[in-house]
Amino acid sequence: MNKTIVKAAFVMIGDEILSGRTVDKNLNFLALFLNEIGIQLHEVRVVKDITDDIIFAINEVRKKYDYVFTSGGIGPTHDDITADAVAKAFDTKLILHDEAKKILQHYYKDDINEARMKMAYIPQGAFLLDNPVSSAPGFRIENVFVMAGVPKIFQAMLEAAKRELVGGRKVLAKEMKIELVESLIAKDLEDLQKKYPNVSMGSYPFVGGTSLVFRSTDEEDLQKSFSEMEKILKTIK
Amino acid sequence: MNKTIVKAAFVMIGDEILSGRTVDKNLNFLALFLNEIGIQLHEVRVVKDITDDIIFAINEVRKKYDYVFTSGGIGPTHDDITADAVAKAFDTKLILHDEAKKILQHYYKDDINEARMKMAYIPQGAFLLDNPVSSAPGFRIENVFVMAGVPKIFQAMLEAAKRELVGGRKVLAKEMKIELVESLIAKDLEDLQKKYPNVSMGSYPFVGGTSLVFRSTDEEDLQKSFSEMEKILKTIK
Repeated sequence: MNKTIVKAAFVMIGDEILSGRTVDKNLNFLALFLNEIGIQLHEVRVVKDITDDIIFAINEVRKKYDYVFTSGGIGPTHDDITADAVAKAFDTKLILHDEAKKILQHYYKDDINEARMKMAYIPQGAFLLDNPVSSAPGFRIENVFVMAGVPKIFQAMLEAAKRELVGGRKVLAKEMKIELVESLIAKDLEDLQKKYPNVSMGSYPFVGGTSLVFRSTDEEDLQKSFSEMEKILKTIK
Repeated sequence: MNKTIVKAAFVMIGDEILSGRTVDKNLNFLALFLNEIGIQLHEVRVVKDITDDIIFAINEVRKKYDYVFTSGGIGPTHDDITADAVAKAFDTKLILHDEAKKILQHYYKDDINEARMKMAYIPQGAFLLDNPVSSAPGFRIENVFVMAGVPKIFQAMLEAAKRELVGGRKVLAKEMKIELVESLIAKDLEDLQKKYPNVSMGSYPFVGGTSLVFRSTDEEDLQKSFSEMEKILKTIK
Protein backbone atom coordinates (compact mmCIF):
# COMPACT_ATOMS: atom_id res chain seq x y z
CA MET A 1 0.00 0.00 0.00
CA ASN A 2 2.35 2.64 -1.28
CA LYS A 3 -0.15 5.45 -1.74
CA THR A 4 0.14 9.05 -0.83
CA ILE A 5 -3.20 9.30 0.91
CA VAL A 6 -4.29 6.44 3.17
CA LYS A 7 -7.88 6.45 4.40
CA ALA A 8 -9.70 4.56 7.12
CA ALA A 9 -13.20 4.02 8.50
CA PHE A 10 -14.31 3.18 12.02
CA VAL A 11 -17.38 1.04 12.72
CA MET A 12 -18.56 1.03 16.31
CA ILE A 13 -20.79 -1.88 17.18
CA GLY A 14 -22.63 -0.43 20.10
CA ASP A 15 -26.20 -0.54 21.36
CA GLU A 16 -24.82 1.09 24.49
CA ILE A 17 -23.61 4.13 22.52
CA LEU A 18 -26.84 4.46 20.53
CA SER A 19 -29.03 4.16 23.63
CA GLY A 20 -27.07 6.93 25.33
CA ARG A 21 -26.00 4.69 28.20
CA THR A 22 -22.32 5.00 27.33
CA VAL A 23 -20.43 8.03 26.09
CA ASP A 24 -18.00 7.06 23.35
CA LYS A 25 -14.33 7.40 24.22
CA ASN A 26 -12.74 5.66 21.23
CA LEU A 27 -13.45 7.88 18.23
CA ASN A 28 -11.24 10.77 19.22
CA PHE A 29 -8.45 8.47 20.37
CA LEU A 30 -8.51 6.60 17.06
CA ALA A 31 -8.61 9.79 14.99
CA LEU A 32 -5.52 11.20 16.67
CA PHE A 33 -3.71 7.84 16.71
CA LEU A 34 -4.24 7.32 12.97
CA ASN A 35 -3.31 10.85 12.04
CA GLU A 36 -0.02 10.39 13.86
CA ILE A 37 0.91 7.51 11.52
CA GLY A 38 -0.32 9.11 8.30
CA ILE A 39 -3.78 7.56 8.07
CA GLN A 40 -6.84 9.78 7.66
CA LEU A 41 -10.06 8.79 9.37
CA HIS A 42 -12.66 9.45 6.67
CA GLU A 43 -15.87 7.99 8.02
CA VAL A 44 -17.39 6.66 11.23
CA ARG A 45 -20.48 4.55 11.69
CA VAL A 46 -22.19 3.45 14.85
CA VAL A 47 -24.50 0.48 14.31
CA LYS A 48 -26.64 -1.66 16.55
CA ASP A 49 -25.76 -5.15 17.75
CA ILE A 50 -27.69 -6.62 14.82
CA THR A 51 -25.91 -9.06 12.50
CA ASP A 52 -27.33 -7.67 9.24
CA ASP A 53 -26.57 -4.09 10.22
CA ILE A 54 -22.96 -4.97 11.03
CA ILE A 55 -22.52 -6.90 7.77
CA PHE A 56 -23.98 -4.02 5.73
CA ALA A 57 -21.76 -1.40 7.32
CA ILE A 58 -18.56 -3.45 7.11
CA ASN A 59 -19.11 -4.45 3.50
CA GLU A 60 -19.74 -0.86 2.48
CA VAL A 61 -16.70 0.64 4.12
CA ARG A 62 -14.12 -2.09 3.59
CA LYS A 63 -14.35 -1.58 -0.17
CA LYS A 64 -14.14 2.20 0.09
CA TYR A 65 -11.20 2.61 2.46
CA ASP A 66 -7.71 1.23 2.96
CA TYR A 67 -8.36 0.20 6.55
CA VAL A 68 -11.42 -0.45 8.66
CA PHE A 69 -11.43 -0.61 12.46
CA THR A 70 -14.32 -1.98 14.47
CA SER A 71 -14.99 -1.82 18.19
CA GLY A 72 -17.24 -3.85 20.44
CA GLY A 73 -19.03 -7.17 20.50
CA ILE A 74 -16.11 -9.60 20.80
CA GLY A 75 -16.67 -10.81 24.38
CA PRO A 76 -18.11 -14.06 25.73
CA THR A 77 -21.82 -13.23 26.00
CA HIS A 78 -24.72 -13.85 23.62
CA ASP A 79 -24.81 -10.20 22.58
CA ASP A 80 -21.22 -10.43 21.30
CA ILE A 81 -21.93 -11.15 17.66
CA THR A 82 -19.20 -9.21 15.88
CA ALA A 83 -16.92 -12.16 14.98
CA ASP A 84 -19.84 -14.04 13.48
CA ALA A 85 -21.06 -10.97 11.56
CA VAL A 86 -17.57 -10.24 10.22
CA ALA A 87 -17.21 -13.87 9.08
CA LYS A 88 -20.50 -13.55 7.22
CA ALA A 89 -19.46 -10.20 5.70
CA PHE A 90 -16.43 -11.99 4.24
CA ASP A 91 -18.54 -14.98 3.23
CA THR A 92 -16.50 -17.28 5.43
CA LYS A 93 -17.14 -19.05 8.76
CA LEU A 94 -15.87 -19.02 12.31
CA ILE A 95 -13.21 -21.57 13.18
CA LEU A 96 -11.58 -22.46 16.48
CA HIS A 97 -8.22 -20.71 16.30
CA ASP A 98 -5.48 -22.86 17.89
CA GLU A 99 -3.38 -20.00 19.18
CA ALA A 100 -6.39 -18.14 20.59
CA LYS A 101 -7.47 -21.35 22.32
CA LYS A 102 -4.05 -21.72 23.92
CA ILE A 103 -4.03 -18.09 25.06
CA LEU A 104 -7.43 -18.46 26.70
CA GLN A 105 -6.54 -21.81 28.31
CA HIS A 106 -3.36 -20.33 29.69
CA TYR A 107 -5.19 -17.27 31.03
CA TYR A 108 -8.24 -18.97 32.55
CA LYS A 109 -6.55 -22.29 33.53
CA ASP A 110 -9.21 -24.51 35.13
CA ASP A 111 -11.84 -21.80 34.89
CA ILE A 112 -12.19 -22.09 31.16
CA ASN A 113 -15.82 -22.58 30.13
CA GLU A 114 -17.89 -22.65 26.97
CA ALA A 115 -18.59 -18.91 27.01
CA ARG A 116 -14.90 -18.11 27.36
CA MET A 117 -13.92 -20.58 24.66
CA LYS A 118 -16.33 -18.77 22.33
CA MET A 119 -13.75 -15.99 22.16
CA ALA A 120 -11.27 -18.38 20.46
CA TYR A 121 -13.51 -18.62 17.40
CA ILE A 122 -12.50 -16.16 14.71
CA PRO A 123 -13.23 -16.00 10.98
CA GLN A 124 -11.26 -18.38 8.77
CA GLY A 125 -8.30 -16.54 7.29
CA ALA A 126 -8.10 -14.02 10.14
CA PHE A 127 -4.98 -13.22 12.19
CA LEU A 128 -4.93 -12.56 15.91
CA LEU A 129 -4.37 -9.13 17.42
CA ASP A 130 -2.69 -9.27 20.82
CA ASN A 131 -4.69 -8.26 23.86
CA PRO A 132 -2.21 -7.70 26.68
CA VAL A 133 -5.00 -6.52 29.01
CA SER A 134 -7.52 -9.34 29.24
CA SER A 135 -6.35 -12.10 26.87
CA ALA A 136 -9.45 -12.23 24.66
CA PRO A 137 -7.89 -11.54 21.28
CA GLY A 138 -8.99 -9.19 18.55
CA PHE A 139 -8.28 -10.13 14.96
CA ARG A 140 -7.58 -8.83 11.49
CA ILE A 141 -9.16 -10.18 8.34
CA GLU A 142 -7.88 -8.57 5.16
CA ASN A 143 -8.10 -4.81 5.80
CA VAL A 144 -10.53 -5.04 8.72
CA PHE A 145 -9.27 -4.84 12.30
CA VAL A 146 -11.76 -6.15 14.85
CA MET A 147 -11.18 -4.84 18.36
CA ALA A 148 -12.79 -4.59 21.78
CA GLY A 149 -15.01 -1.67 22.81
CA VAL A 150 -13.63 -1.15 26.33
CA PRO A 151 -11.35 1.87 25.79
CA LYS A 152 -8.34 0.44 27.65
CA ILE A 153 -8.45 -2.77 25.59
CA PHE A 154 -9.31 -0.91 22.38
CA GLN A 155 -6.17 1.18 22.83
CA ALA A 156 -3.98 -1.83 23.59
CA MET A 157 -5.22 -3.65 20.48
CA LEU A 158 -4.63 -0.57 18.38
CA GLU A 159 -1.03 -0.60 19.57
CA ALA A 160 -0.83 -4.24 18.46
CA ALA A 161 -2.38 -3.36 15.11
CA LYS A 162 0.12 -0.57 14.56
CA ARG A 163 2.88 -2.78 13.16
CA GLU A 164 0.57 -3.90 10.37
CA LEU A 165 -0.51 -0.42 9.35
CA VAL A 166 1.25 1.43 6.56
CA GLY A 167 0.57 5.14 6.60
CA GLY A 168 0.86 7.70 3.85
CA ARG A 169 1.50 11.38 3.94
CA LYS A 170 0.70 12.91 7.25
CA VAL A 171 -1.91 15.64 7.49
CA LEU A 172 -0.35 18.70 9.09
CA ALA A 173 -2.47 21.29 10.82
CA LYS A 174 -2.13 24.90 11.91
CA GLU A 175 -4.74 26.68 13.96
CA MET A 176 -5.38 30.27 14.96
CA LYS A 177 -8.05 31.65 17.23
CA ILE A 178 -9.36 35.08 16.27
CA GLU A 179 -11.74 37.46 18.01
CA LEU A 180 -13.92 37.95 14.96
CA VAL A 181 -17.17 36.21 14.07
CA GLU A 182 -16.64 33.96 11.08
CA SER A 183 -19.02 35.79 8.78
CA LEU A 184 -16.64 38.79 8.77
CA ILE A 185 -13.77 36.78 7.31
CA ALA A 186 -15.85 34.40 5.17
CA LYS A 187 -15.16 36.14 1.86
CA ASP A 188 -11.38 36.43 2.37
CA LEU A 189 -11.19 32.85 3.60
CA GLU A 190 -13.07 31.58 0.57
CA ASP A 191 -10.76 33.46 -1.81
CA LEU A 192 -7.74 32.02 -0.02
CA GLN A 193 -9.24 28.52 -0.17
CA LYS A 194 -9.59 28.89 -3.95
CA LYS A 195 -5.94 29.99 -4.20
CA TYR A 196 -4.76 26.95 -2.19
CA PRO A 197 -7.00 24.03 -3.16
CA ASN A 198 -4.72 21.49 -1.48
CA VAL A 199 -5.10 23.16 1.92
CA SER A 200 -8.35 22.40 3.68
CA MET A 201 -9.49 25.52 5.53
CA GLY A 202 -12.03 25.05 8.28
CA SER A 203 -13.79 27.78 10.22
CA TYR A 204 -15.27 26.89 13.62
CA PRO A 205 -17.20 29.46 15.62
CA PHE A 206 -17.04 29.61 19.37
CA VAL A 207 -18.50 32.13 21.82
CA GLY A 208 -16.46 35.30 21.28
CA GLY A 209 -14.60 34.30 18.16
CA THR A 210 -13.60 31.80 15.51
CA SER A 211 -11.01 29.06 15.18
CA LEU A 212 -9.42 28.80 11.79
CA VAL A 213 -7.87 25.40 11.11
CA PHE A 214 -5.72 24.86 8.04
CA ARG A 215 -4.88 21.25 7.17
CA SER A 216 -2.72 19.87 4.38
CA THR A 217 -0.25 17.16 3.49
CA ASP A 218 1.82 19.85 1.77
CA GLU A 219 3.86 21.67 4.42
CA GLU A 220 4.98 24.54 2.19
CA ASP A 221 1.49 25.46 1.00
CA LEU A 222 0.21 25.10 4.54
CA GLN A 223 2.76 27.62 5.81
CA LYS A 224 2.25 30.01 2.93
CA SER A 225 -1.53 30.06 3.10
CA PHE A 226 -1.48 30.40 6.88
CA SER A 227 0.89 33.39 6.69
CA GLU A 228 -1.33 35.03 4.08
CA MET A 229 -4.32 34.61 6.37
CA GLU A 230 -2.41 36.27 9.18
CA LYS A 231 -1.62 39.21 6.91
CA ILE A 232 -5.26 39.51 5.81
CA LEU A 233 -6.38 39.57 9.43
CA LYS A 234 -4.10 42.50 10.18
CA THR A 235 -5.93 44.53 7.53
CA ILE A 236 -9.31 43.73 9.13
CA LYS A 237 -8.45 44.27 12.78
CA MET B 1 -46.48 8.13 11.58
CA ASN B 2 -48.51 6.00 13.94
CA LYS B 3 -46.04 3.17 14.42
CA THR B 4 -45.02 1.38 17.53
CA ILE B 5 -41.30 1.58 16.94
CA VAL B 6 -39.88 4.85 15.64
CA LYS B 7 -36.26 4.87 14.48
CA ALA B 8 -33.79 7.63 13.71
CA ALA B 9 -30.31 8.15 12.31
CA PHE B 10 -27.79 10.89 13.03
CA VAL B 11 -25.38 12.18 10.40
CA MET B 12 -22.57 14.36 11.71
CA ILE B 13 -20.94 16.48 9.05
CA GLY B 14 -17.61 17.05 10.64
CA ASP B 15 -14.03 17.17 9.43
CA GLU B 16 -13.21 18.48 12.90
CA ILE B 17 -14.54 15.30 14.54
CA LEU B 18 -12.77 12.99 12.07
CA SER B 19 -9.46 14.82 12.40
CA GLY B 20 -9.60 14.48 16.17
CA ARG B 21 -9.54 18.23 16.71
CA THR B 22 -12.96 18.27 18.33
CA VAL B 23 -14.50 15.73 20.70
CA ASP B 24 -18.12 15.09 19.80
CA LYS B 25 -20.65 16.25 22.37
CA ASN B 26 -23.89 15.82 20.40
CA LEU B 27 -24.30 12.05 19.96
CA ASN B 28 -24.99 11.21 23.58
CA PHE B 29 -27.26 14.22 24.03
CA LEU B 30 -29.31 13.27 20.97
CA ALA B 31 -29.55 9.59 22.00
CA LEU B 32 -30.96 10.46 25.41
CA PHE B 33 -33.20 13.23 24.06
CA LEU B 34 -34.77 10.94 21.46
CA ASN B 35 -35.22 8.05 23.84
CA GLU B 36 -37.15 10.34 26.15
CA ILE B 37 -39.75 10.96 23.42
CA GLY B 38 -39.98 7.38 22.17
CA ILE B 39 -37.57 7.52 19.27
CA GLN B 40 -34.74 5.02 18.99
CA LEU B 41 -31.41 6.15 17.60
CA HIS B 42 -30.46 3.27 15.32
CA GLU B 43 -27.43 4.47 13.41
CA VAL B 44 -24.86 7.24 13.43
CA ARG B 45 -22.52 8.33 10.68
CA VAL B 46 -19.74 10.86 10.74
CA VAL B 47 -18.78 12.05 7.27
CA LYS B 48 -16.34 14.57 5.91
CA ASP B 49 -17.24 18.03 4.60
CA ILE B 50 -17.43 16.61 1.08
CA THR B 51 -20.65 17.13 -0.90
CA ASP B 52 -20.79 13.63 -2.40
CA ASP B 53 -20.13 11.96 0.95
CA ILE B 54 -22.93 13.95 2.59
CA ILE B 55 -25.37 13.17 -0.23
CA PHE B 56 -24.54 9.45 -0.08
CA ALA B 57 -25.01 9.20 3.67
CA ILE B 58 -28.23 11.20 3.78
CA ASN B 59 -29.81 9.32 0.92
CA GLU B 60 -29.00 5.98 2.49
CA VAL B 61 -30.35 6.73 5.93
CA ARG B 62 -33.40 8.86 5.08
CA LYS B 63 -34.98 5.89 3.33
CA LYS B 64 -34.18 3.48 6.17
CA TYR B 65 -35.34 5.48 9.18
CA ASP B 66 -38.32 7.57 10.26
CA TYR B 67 -36.19 10.58 11.12
CA VAL B 68 -32.72 11.79 10.25
CA PHE B 69 -30.84 14.48 12.14
CA THR B 70 -27.72 16.15 10.82
CA SER B 71 -25.23 18.43 12.55
CA GLY B 72 -22.69 20.85 11.22
CA GLY B 73 -21.91 22.82 8.10
CA ILE B 74 -24.74 25.38 8.08
CA GLY B 75 -22.74 28.53 8.87
CA PRO B 76 -21.61 31.40 6.63
CA THR B 77 -18.17 30.20 5.48
CA HIS B 78 -17.10 28.35 2.32
CA ASP B 79 -16.73 25.06 4.22
CA ASP B 80 -20.41 25.15 5.20
CA ILE B 81 -21.82 23.01 2.42
CA THR B 82 -24.56 21.06 4.18
CA ALA B 83 -27.58 23.00 2.86
CA ASP B 84 -26.33 22.64 -0.70
CA ALA B 85 -25.61 18.92 -0.25
CA VAL B 86 -29.02 18.28 1.30
CA ALA B 87 -30.72 20.11 -1.58
CA LYS B 88 -28.82 17.90 -4.02
CA ALA B 89 -29.72 14.75 -2.03
CA PHE B 90 -33.38 15.69 -2.48
CA ASP B 91 -32.81 16.62 -6.12
CA THR B 92 -33.90 20.17 -5.50
CA LYS B 93 -32.12 23.53 -5.25
CA LEU B 94 -31.36 26.21 -2.72
CA ILE B 95 -33.71 29.18 -2.64
CA LEU B 96 -33.61 32.41 -0.68
CA HIS B 97 -36.11 31.83 2.11
CA ASP B 98 -38.07 35.03 2.89
CA GLU B 99 -38.52 34.40 6.58
CA ALA B 100 -34.89 33.37 7.07
CA LYS B 101 -33.82 36.55 5.25
CA LYS B 102 -35.96 38.67 7.58
CA ILE B 103 -34.58 36.91 10.66
CA LEU B 104 -31.01 37.54 9.55
CA GLN B 105 -31.68 41.17 8.56
CA HIS B 106 -33.31 41.78 11.92
CA TYR B 107 -30.41 40.14 13.77
CA TYR B 108 -27.50 41.71 11.88
CA LYS B 109 -29.15 45.05 10.99
CA ASP B 110 -26.63 47.10 8.99
CA ASP B 111 -23.94 44.47 9.39
CA ILE B 112 -25.61 42.06 7.02
CA ASN B 113 -23.21 40.87 4.31
CA GLU B 114 -23.08 38.30 1.54
CA ALA B 115 -21.65 35.55 3.77
CA ARG B 116 -24.37 36.06 6.36
CA MET B 117 -27.11 36.16 3.76
CA LYS B 118 -25.86 32.77 2.52
CA MET B 119 -27.48 31.29 5.64
CA ALA B 120 -30.93 32.36 4.38
CA TYR B 121 -30.67 29.94 1.46
CA ILE B 122 -32.32 26.61 2.21
CA PRO B 123 -33.56 23.79 -0.03
CA GLN B 124 -36.85 24.38 -1.83
CA GLY B 125 -39.65 22.77 0.16
CA ALA B 126 -37.80 23.00 3.48
CA PHE B 127 -39.18 24.53 6.68
CA LEU B 128 -37.20 26.64 9.13
CA LEU B 129 -36.13 25.41 12.54
CA ASP B 130 -35.83 28.19 15.08
CA ASN B 131 -32.41 29.10 16.36
CA PRO B 132 -32.91 31.21 19.48
CA VAL B 133 -29.16 31.31 20.13
CA SER B 134 -27.56 32.87 17.08
CA SER B 135 -30.35 33.46 14.55
CA ALA B 136 -28.94 31.33 11.69
CA PRO B 137 -31.79 28.92 11.15
CA GLY B 138 -31.71 25.16 10.74
CA PHE B 139 -34.35 23.54 8.58
CA ARG B 140 -36.38 20.41 7.98
CA ILE B 141 -36.95 18.85 4.59
CA GLU B 142 -39.27 15.85 4.65
CA ASN B 143 -37.92 13.63 7.45
CA VAL B 144 -34.45 15.22 7.60
CA PHE B 145 -33.67 17.82 10.28
CA VAL B 146 -30.60 19.90 9.47
CA MET B 147 -29.00 21.49 12.51
CA ALA B 148 -25.88 23.31 13.68
CA GLY B 149 -22.87 21.49 15.10
CA VAL B 150 -22.11 23.82 18.00
CA PRO B 151 -23.60 21.87 20.95
CA LYS B 152 -25.49 24.81 22.47
CA ILE B 153 -27.16 25.62 19.14
CA PHE B 154 -27.65 21.94 18.27
CA GLN B 155 -29.57 21.48 21.50
CA ALA B 156 -31.69 24.60 20.98
CA MET B 157 -32.66 23.48 17.47
CA LEU B 158 -33.50 20.02 18.75
CA GLU B 159 -35.89 21.66 21.18
CA ALA B 160 -37.45 23.50 18.22
CA ALA B 161 -37.67 20.25 16.25
CA LYS B 162 -39.40 18.50 19.14
CA ARG B 163 -42.89 19.68 18.27
CA GLU B 164 -42.63 18.07 14.86
CA LEU B 165 -41.45 14.69 16.15
CA VAL B 166 -43.90 11.89 16.81
CA GLY B 167 -42.48 9.19 19.02
CA GLY B 168 -43.55 5.60 19.46
CA ARG B 169 -43.20 3.26 22.36
CA LYS B 170 -40.49 4.28 24.74
CA VAL B 171 -37.59 1.95 25.41
CA LEU B 172 -37.40 1.28 29.13
CA ALA B 173 -34.16 0.16 30.73
CA LYS B 174 -33.09 -1.52 33.92
CA GLU B 175 -29.48 -1.95 34.91
CA MET B 176 -27.63 -3.91 37.56
CA LYS B 177 -23.94 -3.93 38.34
CA ILE B 178 -22.57 -7.28 39.52
CA GLU B 179 -19.18 -8.28 40.85
CA LEU B 180 -18.81 -11.20 38.47
CA VAL B 181 -16.94 -11.33 35.17
CA GLU B 182 -19.39 -11.68 32.34
CA SER B 183 -18.18 -15.09 31.16
CA LEU B 184 -19.49 -16.62 34.39
CA ILE B 185 -23.07 -15.58 33.70
CA ALA B 186 -22.95 -15.83 29.91
CA LYS B 187 -24.82 -19.15 29.67
CA ASP B 188 -27.63 -18.15 32.05
CA LEU B 189 -27.98 -14.78 30.35
CA GLU B 190 -28.23 -16.38 26.93
CA ASP B 191 -30.93 -18.78 28.11
CA LEU B 192 -32.86 -15.88 29.61
CA GLN B 193 -32.48 -13.88 26.39
CA LYS B 194 -34.00 -16.78 24.46
CA LYS B 195 -36.92 -16.89 26.91
CA TYR B 196 -37.57 -13.14 26.52
CA PRO B 197 -36.85 -12.26 22.89
CA ASN B 198 -38.48 -8.83 23.21
CA VAL B 199 -36.07 -7.78 25.94
CA SER B 200 -32.63 -6.77 24.70
CA MET B 201 -30.05 -7.95 27.25
CA GLY B 202 -26.64 -6.34 27.10
CA SER B 203 -23.59 -7.30 29.09
CA TYR B 204 -20.85 -4.72 29.56
CA PRO B 205 -17.65 -5.58 31.39
CA PHE B 206 -15.86 -3.08 33.58
CA VAL B 207 -12.84 -3.50 35.84
CA GLY B 208 -14.10 -5.61 38.74
CA GLY B 209 -17.45 -6.64 37.34
CA THR B 210 -20.17 -6.46 34.74
CA SER B 211 -23.11 -4.20 34.01
CA LEU B 212 -26.21 -5.97 32.82
CA VAL B 213 -28.59 -3.71 30.94
CA PHE B 214 -32.07 -4.94 30.03
CA ARG B 215 -34.02 -2.83 27.55
CA SER B 216 -37.52 -3.27 26.22
CA THR B 217 -40.66 -1.43 25.15
CA ASP B 218 -42.65 -4.03 27.13
CA GLU B 219 -42.61 -3.02 30.79
CA GLU B 220 -44.01 -6.29 32.13
CA ASP B 221 -41.50 -8.52 30.37
CA LEU B 222 -38.72 -6.14 31.35
CA GLN B 223 -39.65 -6.46 35.04
CA LYS B 224 -40.13 -10.22 34.88
CA SER B 225 -36.90 -10.98 33.09
CA PHE B 226 -34.95 -8.63 35.34
CA SER B 227 -36.35 -10.31 38.47
CA GLU B 228 -35.45 -13.72 37.09
CA MET B 229 -31.91 -12.57 36.49
CA GLU B 230 -31.68 -11.36 40.07
CA LYS B 231 -32.83 -14.79 41.27
CA ILE B 232 -30.31 -16.56 39.05
CA LEU B 233 -27.51 -14.39 40.44
CA LYS B 234 -28.36 -15.41 44.00
CA THR B 235 -27.74 -19.04 43.06
CA ILE B 236 -24.31 -18.14 41.63
CA LYS B 237 -23.05 -15.81 44.33
